[in-house]
Amino acid sequence: MQNFNYSIPTKVFFGKGRIKVLGTNIKQYGSKVLIVYGGGSIKRNGIYDKIVNILKEENIDFCELSGVEPNPRITTVRKGIKICKDNNIDFVLAVGGGSSIDCAKAIAAGYYYEGDPWDIVVNPRKIKKVLPIASILTLAATGSEMDVFAVISNTETNEKLGTSHPDMAPKFSVLDPEYTFSVPANQTASGTADIMSHTFESYFTNTRETFIQNRISEAILKTCIEYGVKAVKDPENYEARANLMWASSLAINGLLAYGKTRNWAVHPMEHELSAIYDITHGVGLAILTPHWMKYVLDENTVDNFVEYGVNVWGIDKNHDKMSIANEAIEKTKEYFVSLGLPTTLKEVGIGEDRLEEMAKKSVSRGKIGVIKALDEKDVLNIFKAAL
Amino acid sequence: MQNFNYSIPTKVFFGKGRIKVLGTNIKQYGSKVLIVYGGGSIKRNGIYDKIVNILKEENIDFCELSGVEPNPRITTVRKGIKICKDNNIDFVLAVGGGSSIDCAKAIAAGYYYEGDPWDIVVNPRKIKKVLPIASILTLAATGSEMDVFAVISNTETNEKLGTSHPDMAPKFSVLDPEYTFSVPANQTASGTADIMSHTFESYFTNTRETFIQNRISEAILKTCIEYGVKAVKDPENYEARANLMWASSLAINGLLAYGKTRNWAVHPMEHELSAIYDITHGVGLAILTPHWMKYVLDENTVDNFVEYGVNVWGIDKNHDKMSIANEAIEKTKEYFVSLGLPTTLKEVGIGEDRLEEMAKKSVSRGKIGVIKALDEKDVLNIFKAAL
Repeated sequence: MQNFNYSIPTKVFFGKGRIKVLGTNIKQYGSKVLIVYGGGSIKRNGIYDKIVNILKEENIDFCELSGVEPNPRITTVRKGIKICKDNNIDFVLAVGGGSSIDCAKAIAAGYYYEGDPWDIVVNPRKIKKVLPIASILTLAATGSEMDVFAVISNTETNEKLGTSHPDMAPKFSVLDPEYTFSVPANQTASGTADIMSHTFESYFTNTRETFIQNRISEAILKTCIEYGVKAVKDPENYEARANLMWASSLAINGLLAYGKTRNWAVHPMEHELSAIYDITHGVGLAILTPHWMKYVLDENTVDNFVEYGVNVWGIDKNHDKMSIANEAIEKTKEYFVSLGLPTTLKEVGIGEDRLEEMAKKSVSRGKIGVIKALDEKDVLNIFKAAL
Repeated sequence: MQNFNYSIPTKVFFGKGRIKVLGTNIKQYGSKVLIVYGGGSIKRNGIYDKIVNILKEENIDFCELSGVEPNPRITTVRKGIKICKDNNIDFVLAVGGGSSIDCAKAIAAGYYYEGDPWDIVVNPRKIKKVLPIASILTLAATGSEMDVFAVISNTETNEKLGTSHPDMAPKFSVLDPEYTFSVPANQTASGTADIMSHTFESYFTNTRETFIQNRISEAILKTCIEYGVKAVKDPENYEARANLMWASSLAINGLLAYGKTRNWAVHPMEHELSAIYDITHGVGLAILTPHWMKYVLDENTVDNFVEYGVNVWGIDKNHDKMSIANEAIEKTKEYFVSLGLPTTLKEVGIGEDRLEEMAKKSVSRGKIGVIKALDEKDVLNIFKAAL
């Protein structure tokens, strides 16, 4: 086990009707709020009205930034920063999934940065101070509600990059599983794939003897497998929504990764797909993951896949190692299919023409992945296999 | 899943040599420290000297309270409070296992309480303010390094009671697995039993559909089973010590219990044993746990034990439910034996004479346990079975 610093300061108010805590908790940090949200779904399902009523009752002033894109854009971040500066905003409240929360984080960090906010996406070290943030989660997927990361897209440069700062962790997040009842099947499915992918990125490493982290990672994976399809088929199944929602936060808040040497593989590959083709992040992950697994499976990595196959999928540990590994990969792919997710890039409109460009960009910060470090050629091979 | 509030604010500096962070982190909260520790082990193994050198180098003044008992006493808490008041202490640093940390917490809370500190043990609501606390852990067991609880004994009244306050969570804890290399086999064993018992107290509940919490609980139990005996047999096995140390914190910091209706059973029973006979807490838990399991096993609770037997012990799920449950209980008992722990009360010098008194006291705050709520008679039956 490697040395690590544990710090997960975000408070979570989990369960039915927890939005009631909003006013008193905001007041601990600020008095003038920017509400950041995406399309109109929070207006249709009544969450918007609830928030506005609470803020009015508590005499908390607020402004709004709506229309955050599924892959939130730096142009929207700039717009949000301007609203904050023009209106003396001192608290940013994200309502939605990872897109709204990531956008809110970039606004909160960009507020204190004098130059263009794209700088702090490209170079997180430029972040020195961050407005306090909170989130009301409406989609179980990215885990942004409990972590320090934000992923922002730049459509001018076709870049999609992650940035982070300890103070970008929300002060608190409201996780009400009922708020995800109206999430459509395809978003529920891709959210589940996203949670599983976050877990895989921490699970498949070379760090020996992180027994406890690996067993907890398997707990998260089993939860996704147990409840992903249930939530797709029965969207108002509270227990499915609750377990997935809590899994989304625990998968990426640090718990699974502490003590391990990390270097994510599938996420940076996928970011290049959605940077150019604007596809849903979780869909891209579901397509790439089984191909990444097949590509990195060899004599050096087979034990990782045996551990996965036996402990997560219950495959007989007495079978041949390679066949356990291959069966585990097949089961992973089948599970994504059972969620209704596509299995090829062609299905989401991605052809051969820009694969090389995307492969090159995905390793622009160096090789990716730990159990097998991937260079440009490796990534291109995986992209081609996924066509 | 029940509604819950998640808040685990303690920072953890985990791994080899992490004590280096001590000075800079203390300075964020205070300038005059009370060091609280137990017997002389931290002087023998050099930890004491390291701490003193760091504090001197950083120009941090300090006083000391040594001699904290294995079951820390209210008399020692009173002594600590007096030192704090006489010396304008503004930060309490516990060095040791749960005893030192619990004592430090009670001192930190008692400092701001005007009456006798036993009041705030009996009635946690009287705690209004707490001095900042940190811990340097030298024994993986109680989890006090990352939770809000303290258990204090009163030898005049033969009481041992738990108290808590959100501000009693340490601001930070240093977890260096090497600091547990010198823990003797019997303490390593009883610490492992303590971690497992904390997990059982959260795992065996009636709350349905806490799938994710149950799988994570199983992760902790498997970690204890994997590494407890290894640490007993090979005390300088870093990975065994590291996994057990992190398990001790995660077992009781809230993670396993959020979303569940709780009412601990074995801990309040054991507290009565160690309140009168001053036995090691984990030893008492190891003796009582299998008897508690057998006593509460019936048609209503069998599914809890099947879940435990199949997922933790790998028992074939196709066997008869009752036989899975009984096998799981037997394996639990055998595991404690393999750790070198006693299995009967007689072995630790407890006879029949005061069982009734202890049974009565253990339910003084009401019935205990959730999967089967136990009254005085039930507890007496369990005590008798454990003789």
